[in-house]
Amino acid sequence: MEFKFSALYTDLYQLTMGHAYFLNHSHTTPVTFDYYFRKIPFRGGYVIFAGLDNLLKALESFQFSLEDINYLTEQGFDKEYLTFLKKFKFKGSIHAPREGEIVFPTEPLLRIEGSMIEVQLIESMVLNILNFESLIATKASRIRSVSGNKSLSEFGLRRAQGLGAIFASRAAIIGGFDSTSNVYAAKEFGLKSAGTMAHSYIQLYEDELTAFRKYAQANPDNTILLVDTYDTLNSGIPNAIKVAKEMEKRDQQLQGIRLDSGDLSFFARKARQMLDDAGLQYIKIAASNQLDEYVIRSLEQQQAPIDIFGIGTNLVTGQPDAALDGVFKMVMADNKPRIKLSENIHKTTLPGNKQVYRFINHDGYFLGIDAMTQLGEGIPQKLIAPFDQNKSTICKGYQTEKLLKPIMIHGEIKNQIRSVEQIKEFSAQRLARLPKEYKRFENPHIYKVSISSKTRDIREELRSKYTQ
Amino acid sequence: MEFKFSALYTDLYQLTMGHAYFLNHSHTTPVTFDYYFRKIPFRGGYVIFAGLDNLLKALESFQFSLEDINYLTEQGFDKEYLTFLKKFKFKGSIHAPREGEIVFPTEPLLRIEGSMIEVQLIESMVLNILNFESLIATKASRIRSVSGNKSLSEFGLRRAQGLGAIFASRAAIIGGFDSTSNVYAAKEFGLKSAGTMAHSYIQLYEDELTAFRKYAQANPDNTILLVDTYDTLNSGIPNAIKVAKEMEKRDQQLQGIRLDSGDLSFFARKARQMLDDAGLQYIKIAASNQLDEYVIRSLEQQQAPIDIFGIGTNLVTGQPDAALDGVFKMVMADNKPRIKLSENIHKTTLPGNKQVYRFINHDGYFLGIDAMTQLGEGIPQKLIAPFDQNKSTICKGYQTEKLLKPIMIHGEIKNQIRSVEQIKEFSAQRLARLPKEYKRFENPHIYKVSISSKTRDIREELRSKYTQ
Repeated sequence: MEFKFSALYTDLYQLTMGHAYFLNHSHTTPVTFDYYFRKIPFRGGYVIFAGLDNLLKALESFQFSLEDINYLTEQGFDKEYLTFLKKFKFKGSIHAPREGEIVFPTEPLLRIEGSMIEVQLIESMVLNILNFESLIATKASRIRSVSGNKSLSEFGLRRAQGLGAIFASRAAIIGGFDSTSNVYAAKEFGLKSAGTMAHSYIQLYEDELTAFRKYAQANPDNTILLVDTYDTLNSGIPNAIKVAKEMEKRDQQLQGIRLDSGDLSFFARKARQMLDDAGLQYIKIAASNQLDEYVIRSLEQQQAPIDIFGIGTNLVTGQPDAALDGVFKMVMADNKPRIKLSENIHKTTLPGNKQVYRFINHDGYFLGIDAMTQLGEGIPQKLIAPFDQNKSTICKGYQTEKLLKPIMIHGEIKNQIRSVEQIKEFSAQRLARLPKEYKRFENPHIYKVSISSKTRDIREELRSKYTQ
Repeated sequence: MEFKFSALYTDLYQLTMGHAYFLNHSHTTPVTFDYYFRKIPFRGGYVIFAGLDNLLKALESFQFSLEDINYLTEQGFDKEYLTFLKKFKFKGSIHAPREGEIVFPTEPLLRIEGSMIEVQLIESMVLNILNFESLIATKASRIRSVSGNKSLSEFGLRRAQGLGAIFASRAAIIGGFDSTSNVYAAKEFGLKSAGTMAHSYIQLYEDELTAFRKYAQANPDNTILLVDTYDTLNSGIPNAIKVAKEMEKRDQQLQGIRLDSGDLSFFARKARQMLDDAGLQYIKIAASNQLDEYVIRSLEQQQAPIDIFGIGTNLVTGQPDAALDGVFKMVMADNKPRIKLSENIHKTTLPGNKQVYRFINHDGYFLGIDAMTQLGEGIPQKLIAPFDQNKSTICKGYQTEKLLKPIMIHGEIKNQIRSVEQIKEFSAQRLARLPKEYKRFENPHIYKVSISSKTRDIREELRSKYTQ
């Protein structure tokens, strides 16, 4: 399977607008677009920015194949335009946080500069990749936050949204998971793969004990026996103990057992006791079945003796939200700031080429406020609430970090592509600097994202221009 | 972009179980697995069975590439096993309803017969493809059910779950949509693509009127102007009317305007009036912005004069459920029926090679009851509730249809691959035969899926065997 993106992986209107730009000779106009989201999913306090490296790879190899051009010819596009598309390469520049960064609503996560047509043509791809991976990395991070150092494995392929499974596995690791069951994703992104066994394995043999024995013989180094096919307490666990004892005689160790149904807290406690009573303290207990951050939090509060969690559907589909609402908006054209108005001030865009500053507290934690400034404006001291000009605060004497860094310049990737494991580590380090009150599940504290006076002034000027 | 599936698009445990089967010489044991789901999504009364043709294509070309084998070698799999995998082809047989069929919980939607290893190796792919496309086709069908003959376009690429977008577009058409914005999916599956324009197009030019004029000149045959960038009533619609009048002078017609924010009912009514007052009755009104079946039902009840609906996120992510809970369970091995028990009788499997009969009422509508029988048993008359043996009914004198038809025999596709448009038509015809009470959104009537006495007897025999 290839997931090298086709240039046709886009919304038709990008191509028809491109067509119009081209015919009107507006296609080379220099523009800037921002990518940002408005609402944190899962009623949470932060988002993990993910998908960037996949996006950069897609942009680097972005091109229309001959087959694509033939298809567009059939769709009636102008020949000269198609000749242009045939040669098209993305040569724009992108500033962004590093992948894995902790980010907040309304602040630009990409500042994309390029010609009108090149930035328009990549919009759908940018949104598709970043919205989804950020959603899943954020969900994974929430699950990690209640799981301590326990082993977390992503098991979602069977219920994932089609090929969405591939990026879901990668994003799960970025958010803090240890492994995935998805072999293709593991190979493609260098992830650790993991798995146990299915009920069908047990069902194939006449009885459970025979099935367990045969599996342990075939995979002596890596056997986790699924114990709930017939009767967990009266058959599954006793049979697993028998096999573990037989393995000990061969100088082998059974790695674990897996519970996949029933009350996981109750069964884990019973299983632990039965295993311990048999002197098998080393055997781990894995649990799966409709887990999410709330169920795991409850299991942990009950001190259920579970060592490994397998999480599928709720993780890989980002339940209950299923989408991050990221948007892609023009903020500059022809070197002039641009605006999109709305009756709802929250949906009015913030014009201009911007940088985002993160303020750092004296203890090294994030202060709880980021600031969007116009490029070249420097670090602002007066920070204004973006949707309520009367609210402002003075921030002096703090360290700051620039969130938007050069990632791609004139079509060339500038930041080193890191391994997924490195991105995961970076993300965990950054998340460790976010104070706890932004991480709680219930009514998390709101991280403030403010604007500079200059950004406010430009917006107000354009607002009055278009609402005369 | 290729979406030819890799054989590694699977859960690791399928490969490790395959390994164990191979080493134990159980891999050639003949088995049957059923694919079915337990719960109808969206609190609805039916599911549209979709994804079958994509699955068949994936199975036909299923093979491990040299790269795959090298990767598995690194993962420590046995050499003889990998030699076996290198030559592996799926040669099993599949019985299923035709794609687009109306189906219900617990009844098998695939009956897959083959050798143990070949059926095990395809499990994850079967579940991934069918669960997702059936979910989205069902959601699309619900949206179609409240939209009359209005034009429905799928716009979800930007918020779709990564590459899940590709199959979502196909499934949306099967469920009753007219077109998709996703150009790649349109090309790949021969779908109609559609689109309008984005706010960025308007923002590029100094003023809205200039932007509208330039777009209409570039795309005279197919222009839908987006009117809410600055001020819908005072700027957007008046400018669209100006451009429409200019087009009339060139013997052209503006196709439509699009509303993407605000109260769609209010703005559509205002827009219709302004257009009609200007003698522009032919201009259509398109609307988008967080639509789903409930919002559209409400808009229709208000008789909002909208001609075209564009639906994105809620459709392509199958909100609020995000997954169909389809499972893949062994029902026969070595010519003997097999069972998976559960404390919950609803989760105990139904053993044996089965056929599903649909009973047809004298008026041609579906009667409201399907029956699962053992293969070769013929049409049953006593139909038993699967999870409550005391409930049964006698069904005599009705026509029946066999739902499971030979679709793939020994690895060869037997049913003609149809166009997506043909599948959509078939699905609509079948849905027309489902009585209305199963289609309502609130507490739909439950379609009964029953079992034959023989199926019940086999299950009870196995239940007592494994719970002694």
